[in-house]
Amino acid sequence: MRLKWITSVAFVLISMASFAQETFNPVDFVNPFIGTTNYGTTNPGAVTPNGLMSVVPFNVMGSAQNKFDKDAQWFSTPYEHTNSVLSGFSHVNLSGVGCPDLGSLLLMPTTGALNVDYKSYGSAYSNETATPGYYSNLLTKYGIKCEVSATPRTGISRFTFPKGESHILLNLGEGLTNESGAMLRKVSDTEVEGMKLLGTFCYNSKAVFPIYFVMRISKAPKQMGYWKKQRTMGVEANWDNTSGKNKLYTTYGKELAGDDIGAFFSFDTNEDEEVVVRMGVSFVSIANARLNLDKEQATSSFDEIRASARKSWNDDLSRIKVEGGTKEQKTVFYTALYHMLIHPNILNDVNGQYPAMESDRILTTNGNRYTVFSLWDTYRNVHQLLTLAYPEKQLGMVQTMLGMYRENGWLPKWELFGRETYTMEGDPSIPVIVDTWMKGIRGFDINLAYEAMRKSATLPGNENLMRPDNDDYLKLGYVPLREQYDNSVSHALEYYIADYALSRLADSLGKKDDAKLFFNRSMGYKNYFCKDFGMLRPKLPDGSFYKPFNPREGENFQPCPGFHEGSAWNYTFYVPHDVFGLAKLMGGKKNFITKLQKTFDEGLYDPANEPDIAYPYLFSYFKGEEWRTQQQVQHLLNKYFTDKPNGIPGNDDTGTMSAWAVFSMMGFYPDCPGEPYYTLTTPAFDKVTITLDPKYSGKKELVIETARPTANSSYIKSMTLGGKPINKYRIAHRDLVNGGILKLILEERTK
Amino acid sequence: MRLKWITSVAFVLISMASFAQETFNPVDFVNPFIGTTNYGTTNPGAVTPNGLMSVVPFNVMGSAQNKFDKDAQWFSTPYEHTNSVLSGFSHVNLSGVGCPDLGSLLLMPTTGALNVDYKSYGSAYSNETATPGYYSNLLTKYGIKCEVSATPRTGISRFTFPKGESHILLNLGEGLTNESGAMLRKVSDTEVEGMKLLGTFCYNSKAVFPIYFVMRISKAPKQMGYWKKQRTMGVEANWDNTSGKNKLYTTYGKELAGDDIGAFFSFDTNEDEEVVVRMGVSFVSIANARLNLDKEQATSSFDEIRASARKSWNDDLSRIKVEGGTKEQKTVFYTALYHMLIHPNILNDVNGQYPAMESDRILTTNGNRYTVFSLWDTYRNVHQLLTLAYPEKQLGMVQTMLGMYRENGWLPKWELFGRETYTMEGDPSIPVIVDTWMKGIRGFDINLAYEAMRKSATLPGNENLMRPDNDDYLKLGYVPLREQYDNSVSHALEYYIADYALSRLADSLGKKDDAKLFFNRSMGYKNYFCKDFGMLRPKLPDGSFYKPFNPREGENFQPCPGFHEGSAWNYTFYVPHDVFGLAKLMGGKKNFITKLQKTFDEGLYDPANEPDIAYPYLFSYFKGEEWRTQQQVQHLLNKYFTDKPNGIPGNDDTGTMSAWAVFSMMGFYPDCPGEPYYTLTTPAFDKVTITLDPKYSGKKELVIETARPTANSSYIKSMTLGGKPINKYRIAHRDLVNGGILKLILEERTK
Repeated sequence: MRLKWITSVAFVLISMASFAQETFNPVDFVNPFIGTTNYGTTNPGAVTPNGLMSVVPFNVMGSAQNKFDKDAQWFSTPYEHTNSVLSGFSHVNLSGVGCPDLGSLLLMPTTGALNVDYKSYGSAYSNETATPGYYSNLLTKYGIKCEVSATPRTGISRFTFPKGESHILLNLGEGLTNESGAMLRKVSDTEVEGMKLLGTFCYNSKAVFPIYFVMRISKAPKQMGYWKKQRTMGVEANWDNTSGKNKLYTTYGKELAGDDIGAFFSFDTNEDEEVVVRMGVSFVSIANARLNLDKEQATSSFDEIRASARKSWNDDLSRIKVEGGTKEQKTVFYTALYHMLIHPNILNDVNGQYPAMESDRILTTNGNRYTVFSLWDTYRNVHQLLTLAYPEKQLGMVQTMLGMYRENGWLPKWELFGRETYTMEGDPSIPVIVDTWMKGIRGFDINLAYEAMRKSATLPGNENLMRPDNDDYLKLGYVPLREQYDNSVSHALEYYIADYALSRLADSLGKKDDAKLFFNRSMGYKNYFCKDFGMLRPKLPDGSFYKPFNPREGENFQPCPGFHEGSAWNYTFYVPHDVFGLAKLMGGKKNFITKLQKTFDEGLYDPANEPDIAYPYLFSYFKGEEWRTQQQVQHLLNKYFTDKPNGIPGNDDTGTMSAWAVFSMMGFYPDCPGEPYYTLTTPAFDKVTITLDPKYSGKKELVIETARPTANSSYIKSMTLGGKPINKYRIAHRDLVNGGILKLILEERTK
Repeated sequence: MRLKWITSVAFVLISMASFAQETFNPVDFVNPFIGTTNYGTTNPGAVTPNGLMSVVPFNVMGSAQNKFDKDAQWFSTPYEHTNSVLSGFSHVNLSGVGCPDLGSLLLMPTTGALNVDYKSYGSAYSNETATPGYYSNLLTKYGIKCEVSATPRTGISRFTFPKGESHILLNLGEGLTNESGAMLRKVSDTEVEGMKLLGTFCYNSKAVFPIYFVMRISKAPKQMGYWKKQRTMGVEANWDNTSGKNKLYTTYGKELAGDDIGAFFSFDTNEDEEVVVRMGVSFVSIANARLNLDKEQATSSFDEIRASARKSWNDDLSRIKVEGGTKEQKTVFYTALYHMLIHPNILNDVNGQYPAMESDRILTTNGNRYTVFSLWDTYRNVHQLLTLAYPEKQLGMVQTMLGMYRENGWLPKWELFGRETYTMEGDPSIPVIVDTWMKGIRGFDINLAYEAMRKSATLPGNENLMRPDNDDYLKLGYVPLREQYDNSVSHALEYYIADYALSRLADSLGKKDDAKLFFNRSMGYKNYFCKDFGMLRPKLPDGSFYKPFNPREGENFQPCPGFHEGSAWNYTFYVPHDVFGLAKLMGGKKNFITKLQKTFDEGLYDPANEPDIAYPYLFSYFKGEEWRTQQQVQHLLNKYFTDKPNGIPGNDDTGTMSAWAVFSMMGFYPDCPGEPYYTLTTPAFDKVTITLDPKYSGKKELVIETARPTANSSYIKSMTLGGKPINKYRIAHRDLVNGGILKLILEERTK
């Protein structure tokens, strides 16, 4: 009876939702300040979905009043919520990464006497507001209201000045990137163009690339010019008074190049006078930057561009509609979805041109060319979420990855604007591509993809850019520890996962020998299992275990023999393709569950990094233990994902943490990358409606309805899929999307 | 009798010369090493007559073994003969200047392991040879033979390598200029293009300008790449090991920009393998640099280009043919003529485009657009020599000067590649233009020229870029000393000379009022005459003389109240437009002669700077004293102008010292700039034949024949011009060139 009533209520709610559809604006639930401290490394800047351009308040430089300074510690975000002094708005930024790069083309409005020294022209600010595609603040030092917005490839800033002498500065010498060097050219009094070198991701990558830009200002300045910080001179300083200082160029307007250069525009402004700055960028050429600016902004006003950005976000966010839950939960959910939809972002210009992978060639695409593939992170859940709800994006990304293989001979690992940074380890393109194919998105050349994947899986180590330790791996079945901090176990665990995924694909393509080969390799993880500890443990080339062994070594991102960014605890359960096999090694289900529960109970689980983020879902592989998944997921969501600036537990990792939250709040999670399965858990909402593309899923939407008889009902009591009862907590992607509607009835549980 | 015999001998010699004309190669007498030490600041590099391009061995940087280092003292030349370590070949250089600039695009061949640090890749050298349009040496550290040559706008270098690993480096971070910043782009494996910022002439000028280049290498390298010296980093140095070091870019080939950048090309070379590097430049654009390279080099070989450069020089030098004299005298003469024909040099590209004066606009000329107008120097004699023997060049230069006025509102003072450096003082365009006009070269807009000259002569000081102290000058008739080292007297003396020249032009144009006005102003020098000292002396605004006054203060370029780069002795006689008036102030001819003689006898004459270089000729204003001119000129020539590297007494000042030698050795000198007159003296040669343009002079040539009855005959006994005896030692230009042949008979004199 109760159930029937609930169903009726749900029906009414659905109807009401349908009526109210026009006013459903998920964009209003997004709080871009979430993740902007606590090393979440997201930012509140203006960006469009998967847009190349972001315009971000830059507050991590030049002031001792800021707690976090990019020049005082390892720092990877242009914005930190704790800080208080802004020194510009950076154009094109990374969201949620742990390594610094980009965050350049710093635009800063000031008033009073011209000052081009970023160490003193910064300003405190107030009145911060941010909503998708828009950010605003008030620079209290200058009385300037700043507003920024974006199109996919261009930024727009509106500065409202007080009466008096005002300036707009474009600083090309600084930024989050640790690479230097820029070129600047005056086109007219109101337009400059140029180039800035970016790169050296994580401070040490060889990946460098240029960003090109064209910048236009709405008001003709009374004066414009350049500055360049001059090199510290020797004896020449006796006669050249610019040694080590910012030299102003007031009458020179051709190319300026250097390490530390900028352009200034000076105005007499009236009270509340608005000056609009438009910035087009390209990674191909200055001409394309201008083309992007012309095509995407034309004569659109700031408000029109802002409205357009908002609409883009609302359209994309509306693909998943949640009902019920608290306002905070909706805020967390839609902000997570928002963060998940920032990277990978488009790279190609409006004319389709883009820089070929690891090359200076320029190619042209018909569709979207994507960039910023943080695959060690995103292969775990971001691409699964895209495959489900944004299949056209996911297809474009897989096509991009294959394009990279065509151009460079390798699928990406951590690709950044056409350059491979080789950040983190493994062979993460494999599970992404296999997962996509297995879930029915097949509009790409699977033979080429297979060739690419087989190449990295089989090529000898000295020729293998993806798996440099492949010789050991193929010969021994594991990667031995050869250097103290060579992350050998982490490497191998990634290869196992990739090989398992590849074996599933080989099988489905009828390549039975390959399927067997790669499956067998994927079982090599057993080499690392140490019975003494019941854990995975680094192994030496002679087959003996590395000692001394402290399973907790590596906590808090300390270096650790064999493990990368984690301890043995964070990696031991990371065999998602053979959970039962691992359990068997551990002595069976009970030991497995006890040990897994211990990681949560004793603080050995790290919610802030990827290796163990699927752990909570592993309980559900064992009948009767599913409640532990439901308990932990809800606990972790409540504890670590909030609507506050610290509401992401660590680096968002280009949306990976956010995708974990999105899936978890919807009630299912793809815990084994490459395997088209989800593990179910308690949804956070009463109803979730995911718009599907019938081309791939047969249905137009997937609805997840959750009935909570009481306020404390947070455990799954029973489920039906497409009206039929189910009692398994691992469910195939195909079954789920074909099911149309998953209904869950919750109950309280007292343990 | 004796005379008759001499005439006969001369006739025979002339006939022989005519027969031998085809083999007369004045280019063989040029020794480009003259002036390359002793602060002559000329260089032995390859250049064409008035060519934009010069390719110069650069040996003033990066080695403690060099006595002179551009970073250890005020230094203004890319080459010093005393030095021993070369760090490249610089492209586009200044010859004979006292302020550093240009001397960039440093090309360096090396062998062995790649090393891009100029502080260690320099090499000692031997086997230096230089002839117009060609320079060669052997880099002993590497065993590389270097040869360079040039066309008007391009350079070519041929490096002969030993067997092994070889490199060619293009360093854009260093050079003689104290300005920094460059951009570089790989076009193909064998071509790069880019831009380098130049300027800050004298270390302090605001004049900056870009040089664009395209560089091609004849051999495809096994590897090419860039380098950039990275900024010294803060905390980032913990993770980025390139802090403060040269970072190599081996896989990146798009734009690189920065303060200290370069490109390298690495080869495996065979024994004696030649690699040719071609460099095109432009001050307009990279496209024009490429066009210049394509048009001027096409497929020409190094040897063809070298031969072409040699022919250009031989053609130009042949305009003046000297016979008799010693080989050393011919060497001094033709080298001086060579040095005089380096600047001003063409600025326009092969398509006629050039950067407009003080502007970022690009204009197009039909003729030649010139640059490098060191007018405070060259107005004294360089332009007079050009007017006489190279009138088409002089006309192009005057047209250029008027173009600058059209574009910028001002005639040039010290123009450098389209930028006014405001170096030194005065209004030197006026005597240049007046002198040119008065001598019959009239193919320019004299009304515009008059407007331009009148503007600087009359505009109030606060609007007057040429005469900033014009208010004082117009009100008081002199420029008072208002600051200790304001060079006030030097300023005024220049204005007097300019105003005198302008008055002569006004008179000839029928502007009688102006003629009177400017003539009266030109007499203002009398304000400075101090009877107590019998010298010009700084004066204060209240009309009193500055004290204390030490007429010798200012020797050796020490700062001096009222006088610029000299003492009162070096300036007191610099009233060439009123020598007799000055003599009157001094108490008459005797006092004048005594005082003038004293300057020579007591070492108060400075042969190394311009203000007093006409002094020796002033004796000849007074009948009976002409021998003093002849004595001093021959003495100074013998003492200071030799065929050795120290054979120019000081900065050649873009050919001014050289022009002094050329005129003096021919036997006449234009001691009053703007007045179309020469003072005669003893020629150094038996015969001088100057090819004239009948368009301007009515005759095809001017011949000066000198008969020396004895070896010690060095004083003029008698003269005939066009067969008629003359007894005046000041002769009008028109009379001289119309005379056709000036014959002098010398005699010994015992005083």
